[in-house]
Amino acid sequence: MPPRASRRQLLGRALGVAVGAGAAGAAGFGVARATEPGPAATPAAPQHDPTADIVPFYGAHQAGIATPAQDRLAFAAFDVTTASVQDLQVLLGTWSAAAAQLTRGLPVGAVETDPQSPPIDTGEAEGLSAARLTITVGFGPSLFDQRFGLSAKRPAALADLPTLPGDGTLVPARSGGDLCVQACADDPTVAFHAIRNFARLARGKAVIRWSQLGFGRTSATSVGQQTERNLMGFKDGTRNIKAETGADLDGYVWVGAEGEQSWMRGGSYLVARRIRMLIESWDTDRLADQENVFGRFKTSGAPLTGKAESDTPDFAAEGADGRPVIPVGAHIRLAAPETNGGQKILRRGYSYTDGIDTATGLLDAGLFFIAYQKDPRAQFVPIQTRLAQHDNLNEYIRHTGSALFAVPPGLAAAGDWWGKALFG
Amino acid sequence: MPPRASRRQLLGRALGVAVGAGAAGAAGFGVARATEPGPAATPAAPQHDPTADIVPFYGAHQAGIATPAQDRLAFAAFDVTTASVQDLQVLLGTWSAAAAQLTRGLPVGAVETDPQSPPIDTGEAEGLSAARLTITVGFGPSLFDQRFGLSAKRPAALADLPTLPGDGTLVPARSGGDLCVQACADDPTVAFHAIRNFARLARGKAVIRWSQLGFGRTSATSVGQQTERNLMGFKDGTRNIKAETGADLDGYVWVGAEGEQSWMRGGSYLVARRIRMLIESWDTDRLADQENVFGRFKTSGAPLTGKAESDTPDFAAEGADGRPVIPVGAHIRLAAPETNGGQKILRRGYSYTDGIDTATGLLDAGLFFIAYQKDPRAQFVPIQTRLAQHDNLNEYIRHTGSALFAVPPGLAAAGDWWGKALFG
Repeated sequence: MPPRASRRQLLGRALGVAVGAGAAGAAGFGVARATEPGPAATPAAPQHDPTADIVPFYGAHQAGIATPAQDRLAFAAFDVTTASVQDLQVLLGTWSAAAAQLTRGLPVGAVETDPQSPPIDTGEAEGLSAARLTITVGFGPSLFDQRFGLSAKRPAALADLPTLPGDGTLVPARSGGDLCVQACADDPTVAFHAIRNFARLARGKAVIRWSQLGFGRTSATSVGQQTERNLMGFKDGTRNIKAETGADLDGYVWVGAEGEQSWMRGGSYLVARRIRMLIESWDTDRLADQENVFGRFKTSGAPLTGKAESDTPDFAAEGADGRPVIPVGAHIRLAAPETNGGQKILRRGYSYTDGIDTATGLLDAGLFFIAYQKDPRAQFVPIQTRLAQHDNLNEYIRHTGSALFAVPPGLAAAGDWWGKALFG
Repeated sequence: MPPRASRRQLLGRALGVAVGAGAAGAAGFGVARATEPGPAATPAAPQHDPTADIVPFYGAHQAGIATPAQDRLAFAAFDVTTASVQDLQVLLGTWSAAAAQLTRGLPVGAVETDPQSPPIDTGEAEGLSAARLTITVGFGPSLFDQRFGLSAKRPAALADLPTLPGDGTLVPARSGGDLCVQACADDPTVAFHAIRNFARLARGKAVIRWSQLGFGRTSATSVGQQTERNLMGFKDGTRNIKAETGADLDGYVWVGAEGEQSWMRGGSYLVARRIRMLIESWDTDRLADQENVFGRFKTSGAPLTGKAESDTPDFAAEGADGRPVIPVGAHIRLAAPETNGGQKILRRGYSYTDGIDTATGLLDAGLFFIAYQKDPRAQFVPIQTRLAQHDNLNEYIRHTGSALFAVPPGLAAAGDWWGKALFG
């Protein structure tokens, strides 16, 4: 595939390689159709350079985890509707090949081929660059039930999340899922296009269970990125794991040799929580209280014991009144490695707003929290349990969605596919 | 106000000037509080240059109409809840002053003032540039009922939209409103921040009735902009009115001397329609049919009678079979000035997706259509009536929201406010 191939090129070869001509053919997407422009042939439209802004798709780990966080998110959880394990494999193979195309700024298939057939790609991203698109796929606990013969392959770390304090507000229709697809890009149309075409490729095999758009990243995952504010106006995540810190990635994010399921080595576990902020209530809270809730100054983002955002919080510091400067229930104290036996998670959160809650007339907006880790039982679960019990922030937030996925390692090259080692 | 003032500067002066100290004081936002950092004062955080990417707020026309379309939209319709015309005036004055701040990349008020008071600005846009933010305000027909004594000021052009063919799918909770606020920016956090703070400033006087985020612009309103694709993968709006074409703006967009209500001269009328696309159905349609629905080639965007996107459609051209090359029911034919007595509208549409329609499991996505014009009775209504009756596109779309607003002219300078001429 020449590096300057446009989105208009045919997908045939990539799909054929990825899942084998037979499987891809069965999926109905493997055979490149001849281009027959017909009498009213259209000239090629001017194209952006589609090789700009490409994040490599193949590698030891899936992109979209340690990749410097892109600006926009489109996320979907799918329920598998087919009872056939072969259908599921074809789906995962088709998705793998499609992701290889999309992340290079190419369509999943030709937009203009046979006028008498539907376009293979839906077309709305034609002419846009790859926009640093990453597509990250995971497997939910429910995929390992009796349906597909995978129960013996279920990792211990993929234990169902326990019911945590405050989980009474979770909405089942916004939670769980057999599969997940996280599409991150610097252009929202590119991210949405990926999810939409994945849903289309899944027709007859899986359906979207829930989806979420994120409009602004709140997590920096690279030392080169500024911490962006959440919708409470605070910088939260200053101490996040950064892509450049290999020791943190190996220590806290990537499943290593300790994973008892070899198919997960090099992978990670994704926890997603849709955290609604009670914005109208928050906005009436006085500044000092807001700062005590987070343990940081609002404008500078510095810890209450420091001057600059990057200053390490001094959790032992006491004020003149003998009380801790960073309150006992402050968010940064409870979430800190110092409070959690040294544990860390890699956060990749995005702000969301989904309009008005018609039941209350209040804004439905907040944080779509995504965290990656090597074992949620040792990381997300104890950290979130502590937060759910004691965090001053709880007065102003409600967890409305929750999901857990095992994210397998990256694909080695064309021909590899998500789940190949799982099913092998 | 020095040009490099940061978002952290106080709002007091601007608000005081805009609506008079008394009115602003009554709104609770007019008096600048002294900055008292206290013992734990925070240093200033590094700031982007907030003067970059500023669209001038004051002028003969409101910005956000002929302004080259920004990438992102946040739109809200409000219902006025106060029965006091003075409260309404204070609200409009407060909004005017806040918009002058926000469009310069400044907060509506200080984030850090008195630790014992809530921050005046919610803070999530601190450190971001103005991102070409425009804020455009309009008045719905319902504002001219008996409540505020405005019925004699209602323009004839603000006649309620008639019930059009296909309007049976409109959702009342997504339609109408006493006031509207259109916030467009190149950064979605900046656009959302404006709507959120407007809602907060309205507390006790008005509440959001419905809101809509748009994630990708579909309309070019400047000759320097490329036409972006809609979620059907087509370029639709190539022949849109462009900001550089003053004759089109004066002829079709700005209310001139013919407006019988002098307070609207220099203004325009905004029609908003939430148009859901039946995406899954569209995606199964064959290419030739899709192209006949629009009357354009999918990839190039050229009319079916042309080679390039900008080619003028030849509606008289017939194929070898004697039938029109651009079908009788093609969208570009029915929407064209040639079919509508020369009438045009200025479109400012955005793609939206609001997740899954839980009733059907299908994507709720489509086009949030915004059009500006000098008289909807002569422009949107007859054009949309023709489209609703004959457009081949109707099989694949449903109008789910509808609203009309009178958008007054621009504010002259600090001290002017939206509605000053209306109430004067």
